[in-house]
Amino acid sequence: MYFCLVQKSFLNTINSPKELRLLNQKDLPQLAKELREFIINIVATKEGHLGASLGVVELTIALHYVFNTPEDQLIWDVGHQAYGHKILTGRRDNFHTNRQLGGISGFPKREESEYDTFGVGHASTSISAALGMAIASQLKGEDKHHIAVIGDASIAGGMAFEGLNHAGVTDANLLIILNDNAIGIDPSVGALKQYLTNVKKGTQKRNNIIKALNFDYSGPIDGHDIDKIISELNRLKTVKGPKFLHIITTKGKGLKQAEKDQVKYHAPGKFNAKTGDLITKITVEEPPKYQDVFGYTILELAKQNKKIVGITPAMPTGSSLKYMMEDMPNRAFDVGIAEQHAVTLAAGMATQGLIPFCNIYSTFLQRAYDQIIHDVALQKLPVIFCLDRAGLVGEDGATHHGVFDLSYLRCIPNLIIFAPRNELELRNIMYTSQLGLEFPIAIRYPRGKGVTLNWKQPFQNIEIGKGILLKKGKKLAVLSIGTIAKNVSEAILNIDVSHYDMRFVKPLDERLLLSIFETYDTIITIEDNSITGGFGSAVLEFAAINNYKNTIKLLGIPDAFIEHGSVDELQQAIGLDVESLSNYIKSFL
Amino acid sequence: MYFCLVQKSFLNTINSPKELRLLNQKDLPQLAKELREFIINIVATKEGHLGASLGVVELTIALHYVFNTPEDQLIWDVGHQAYGHKILTGRRDNFHTNRQLGGISGFPKREESEYDTFGVGHASTSISAALGMAIASQLKGEDKHHIAVIGDASIAGGMAFEGLNHAGVTDANLLIILNDNAIGIDPSVGALKQYLTNVKKGTQKRNNIIKALNFDYSGPIDGHDIDKIISELNRLKTVKGPKFLHIITTKGKGLKQAEKDQVKYHAPGKFNAKTGDLITKITVEEPPKYQDVFGYTILELAKQNKKIVGITPAMPTGSSLKYMMEDMPNRAFDVGIAEQHAVTLAAGMATQGLIPFCNIYSTFLQRAYDQIIHDVALQKLPVIFCLDRAGLVGEDGATHHGVFDLSYLRCIPNLIIFAPRNELELRNIMYTSQLGLEFPIAIRYPRGKGVTLNWKQPFQNIEIGKGILLKKGKKLAVLSIGTIAKNVSEAILNIDVSHYDMRFVKPLDERLLLSIFETYDTIITIEDNSITGGFGSAVLEFAAINNYKNTIKLLGIPDAFIEHGSVDELQQAIGLDVESLSNYIKSFL
Repeated sequence: MYFCLVQKSFLNTINSPKELRLLNQKDLPQLAKELREFIINIVATKEGHLGASLGVVELTIALHYVFNTPEDQLIWDVGHQAYGHKILTGRRDNFHTNRQLGGISGFPKREESEYDTFGVGHASTSISAALGMAIASQLKGEDKHHIAVIGDASIAGGMAFEGLNHAGVTDANLLIILNDNAIGIDPSVGALKQYLTNVKKGTQKRNNIIKALNFDYSGPIDGHDIDKIISELNRLKTVKGPKFLHIITTKGKGLKQAEKDQVKYHAPGKFNAKTGDLITKITVEEPPKYQDVFGYTILELAKQNKKIVGITPAMPTGSSLKYMMEDMPNRAFDVGIAEQHAVTLAAGMATQGLIPFCNIYSTFLQRAYDQIIHDVALQKLPVIFCLDRAGLVGEDGATHHGVFDLSYLRCIPNLIIFAPRNELELRNIMYTSQLGLEFPIAIRYPRGKGVTLNWKQPFQNIEIGKGILLKKGKKLAVLSIGTIAKNVSEAILNIDVSHYDMRFVKPLDERLLLSIFETYDTIITIEDNSITGGFGSAVLEFAAINNYKNTIKLLGIPDAFIEHGSVDELQQAIGLDVESLSNYIKSFL
Repeated sequence: MYFCLVQKSFLNTINSPKELRLLNQKDLPQLAKELREFIINIVATKEGHLGASLGVVELTIALHYVFNTPEDQLIWDVGHQAYGHKILTGRRDNFHTNRQLGGISGFPKREESEYDTFGVGHASTSISAALGMAIASQLKGEDKHHIAVIGDASIAGGMAFEGLNHAGVTDANLLIILNDNAIGIDPSVGALKQYLTNVKKGTQKRNNIIKALNFDYSGPIDGHDIDKIISELNRLKTVKGPKFLHIITTKGKGLKQAEKDQVKYHAPGKFNAKTGDLITKITVEEPPKYQDVFGYTILELAKQNKKIVGITPAMPTGSSLKYMMEDMPNRAFDVGIAEQHAVTLAAGMATQGLIPFCNIYSTFLQRAYDQIIHDVALQKLPVIFCLDRAGLVGEDGATHHGVFDLSYLRCIPNLIIFAPRNELELRNIMYTSQLGLEFPIAIRYPRGKGVTLNWKQPFQNIEIGKGILLKKGKKLAVLSIGTIAKNVSEAILNIDVSHYDMRFVKPLDERLLLSIFETYDTIITIEDNSITGGFGSAVLEFAAINNYKNTIKLLGIPDAFIEHGSVDELQQAIGLDVESLSNYIKSFL
C-alpha cells in the first residue's frame, strides 16, 4: 500500500493548499484515496484518532480547494477529524510525530500552523469562535469566509446552541457545516439526533430547526461525493449572512472494520493497515483500567442499592458506564455532550432520594463548574462525582489534562474531595459514598491502568476525612494525594522518610496533620494537580491557621499548560517521576 | 389599598395551596388582583424584584390550583418570578422579610419550604432539574407531575437546550412552561427570541423548534387569562411524556409604569404603591457605581481605540455596557444568557486582533470556566474580562455572591488577575489592558457605589504585577486586594501598621513581597473572596517557595455559603467590617 502511494502520488506534491488548488477537480477523488491511505498507514503504527478523520477526507479536500485558506478561516470543532487538514497544510512529513512529545498536536493548535485558526479539543466551541472571527472581519472591513465544521454530537452541546442563537441574528459571513455521522465517540443521543435522523430519512419535512433559527439551510448532501460538496460550497460562497450546510458522512469511511465498529475505531490503537485488524498484545494479566473499576463497581453496587443511578455526558465507553447501561438501561443515562445538564439532572435526581453517580472527565467538568456550586453544593445534594482522566492524560495534551480540579473544587463549600491511591480505594470510596453521605463528593482518578491485579475485594467503608500512614520513617514527611503515591513509594524505597496518603483534599484530616506537624520539621506535599491552589495549598492554609512554622514544600503541576507526550515523559519533564522525586526528597535530608 | 385587602380578602385565607384549591374558579381573578396588590405593596417599601412576579400571577395561581403541589413538583427558573408562589405557599406573613438578613430568600430555596423543590438563582437550570425529578419519580413508580417554568431569556441559555435535547427522547412526565414576555432583565435577544416573536405574530407557521425536539407543543396562549390556563393545564395533565406549553405574559402586568418601563421595574427599588412612581432620593453628589465607571470608561476608550469591542451576556443594564451599545451598536454585543458563548466569541475576536472587553458578573463567570481555560488562557488570547458583582453582593444572597473567582481563576496559567481598590484603579487598569497585553486579564470589582467623587481623571498606566504601599507603619503588614482596602484603611486609622494594596493576585508582586517578608514578622491578608485557595493562599505559596517562616494570617470569606442580607450586615457576620478588622489586627500587636 505504501508502495502504491509512492507510485502516483498527488498527495506528495501538496505542501500547502496552494498546490491542492492547482489540481484538476477530476483528480480529487484520487487524492482523497491517497489521503485516506496515508492517514490509515500512519495511525496504524503511531496510534491516534482514526475514524473521524477518515469520515471527512472529501470535505477536507473540498474546503481547502474551494476556500482561500488560511485567509478564509476554517475551525474544526473538537479536532479529532483534522488529521487530513494537518496533512494538507504543511504537516504531512511531520504527521508521524502526531501526539508524541515534541511532535505535532493531535488537535488543531494556533502555534502550530496559520491554518489552525483556533485551538480545539473540547466540543462545541467552533460556532462561537468562528462567529467572533466573522464579526471581527466585518468590523475590519475584510471580505473573508469563516467556516465552522461541527459534528452532530458536538452541535447538541449547549454552547453550540448559544452560538447558533447569536449567529442567526447577525449578518456575519459565517458558514456552519454539520458533519452528521450520527456518532461522537459513542453513538449520538438526544432529540436533536433523532430529528437529524428523520431529516436524513426524509420523514422530517416540516419543523426545520436550523431555518427557524434564521439560517440559510441546505442539505443534507452526501459528504463523500466530492463534486457535490465542491459545487455546494461554491454556491454558498456567494450567499451572504449565516449559512448552514448539512452533510452526511460515515465515520471510519474507507476502512471496513472502522466503518463497522465505529466506537472501537475512534482511536483504535495499533492495527494492521492492510486488513484493519487490531493488533492485540498478548500479555500477562494486567491490572484493570481505573475506568473499568468504576464501570464494574457501579454495576455491582447498583445491583445491591436500587437508589443508584449512573450518568455520563457522552462517554459511555470512555467512562465504562456502558456496562451498567447494558445491564440496567433504565438506570444509566448517556445524556450527550451536555456536562451542565448532566450535573443538574443529577441534582434533580438527588432531591428525590436517588444516589446519582455522575461520571465526567476532570477536564470536562470545567464545563459544569457553576452547576456543581449552584445546583449541587449549595443545596448539599449528595451527588457522587467520579472524575475520570484526572491528572496528566498523556498524548491528548494541554486541552485534556485534568490538572485543575483540586484547585477549582477546593473552594466549594460542602464538597468532599477524595483521590484514591489505587483500585481498592476507588472501589471502597464508591461503596462508602452510596451508603448515605450528607454532602456531595468528588472522586478523582487517572486515565489508564491501575496497580492491583486482585482488585475485586470485599468492600470496606472509608471514614470520611481520614488519611493514612503508608510508610513510617524519621527524617521528614511526604504527603501525597491520589495515584501519584505509587511514584512516591518507589522514590522513597531506600530513604528514611514517612509517607502519608492524605486521601481527602477536603475535609483535610486535621488530626493526622496536627501529629505530622508536631513530628516532622519538613513536610513535602505531592499531587498531580496544579500546585496553585491545590492540595499543597490546603496544607499551607492548615499550617497558617494553626500557627505552624514547619518547612513545607509543594510538588505538583507547575503554573503552565503542559503539552502532549506520554505520561512518563511528562512526569519527567515536570519532576514528578520516581527519580526526580527521589532526588528532591533526598535534598532535604 | 391595604384597607381594600382587609375588606374581602381571599388571599388572607390562603395559608397553603390546599386552601387555594377550595376556592371557586370564578373567584380566582379576584385572588389574582389581591395577590398582585399584595406584591406591589410589599415590594414598594421593602424593595425586590417586581416585574417578573407581576407577570406570572395568573400562572402561579393556576399551577397551584390545578396541580397537587408539593406532591407535584414545580420548579421556577431563576426565581425572580416566584414571589406569588412564596406568598401562596405559607410565606405571606413573612413576605415583608424578603431578602433581608434572617428573612426569606428572594429566590426559591429548598430549606425554606417543601414547595420550593429546587433552589434557583442562575438561569436555565429548571429543565434539567425537573427532568431529574421526573426520571426519579418514574424509577420510584410514583405518579407525579413535574413542571418547569422558564422564561424566554433563560430558555436561550445553552444548558436549557441540553435539557430539552435529553427530555425530548424520554417518556418522563414533564411539563415545560415557556413564560414568554420577550424580556429577561433586559429585552431578550437572539434567533430564538425572533422565532418566538414570529410565533406570536402568527408569521411562523412551519418549523416549530419544540415539536422538532419531540415535545407535545401547545400554545401560544394568553398567560393572563386564568380560565384558559387552567383549562389547558387540566388537558396537559392527561398527556403523557414531555410536554411544552407556550404562554404569553406581560412583565410588570398590573402596574402601568412597570409594564411600560420593564427594565427599570425589574427591581425598581422603593416606589409609590398607588401611583407606581419611583421614590428618588434627593441626595448630595455621590461616587459612581463601579458598573458605570466600567460603562463610561469602555466607551471613552473605544472612541480612541477602534479595536475595542464590548460583550455582555444579557446584562447591558446591569453591567452598564448599554452606554456603548447605544453609542456604538456595531461594536458592543448583548449575546443573551450565554456566558460560554460570550467568552469563546471574545476569544475568536481576539484572534483577529480585536480587543474584547467581556463583562460578566463574577458568579455567572462560573458558567464559562472551561472556556476561559480552554479557549482563552491556553491560547494566550488577550481578552479583558471585567467581573462585576465580585465579592459579597448583599440581598441576592448565596446564589449571587462573587466570592470564588480569585480561587477558581488563580490556577489558570497565563491569566492576569487584578482587583481595583477604587474607581481610578478600575479606569486605569482598563486603560492599561487595551494598550496591548500579551495575556488575558480578569478585573474584578464589586456591586454598588465606589468611593471617589472626582473619578474621571486622566488615564494612567498601571505596571502589570505591581502592588503599592498605602500606609507605612511598623508593627505588621496588612495586605489587601480590591475594594475591601477601604475597610482596612478605616480599621487601621489609629494603628501603627503598614497597609499594602497588592492589586494583582496574579502575577504577585514578588519583589514587594520579598521586602514585606523581610521587614515584618506578621502579615495579614484580607480579601472579599473565599480564603480557600484565594489571594491569601497565593501569599502562603509565595512564602513556602521562598522559605519564609513569618506568621501569615488569612482573612476573607469563610468556607461556607453566605446567605442574604446587606453587605454591611454580612461583613459584620464574617468579620470583614471595620470594627472586626480593627480588633483582629490589634490582637497581633
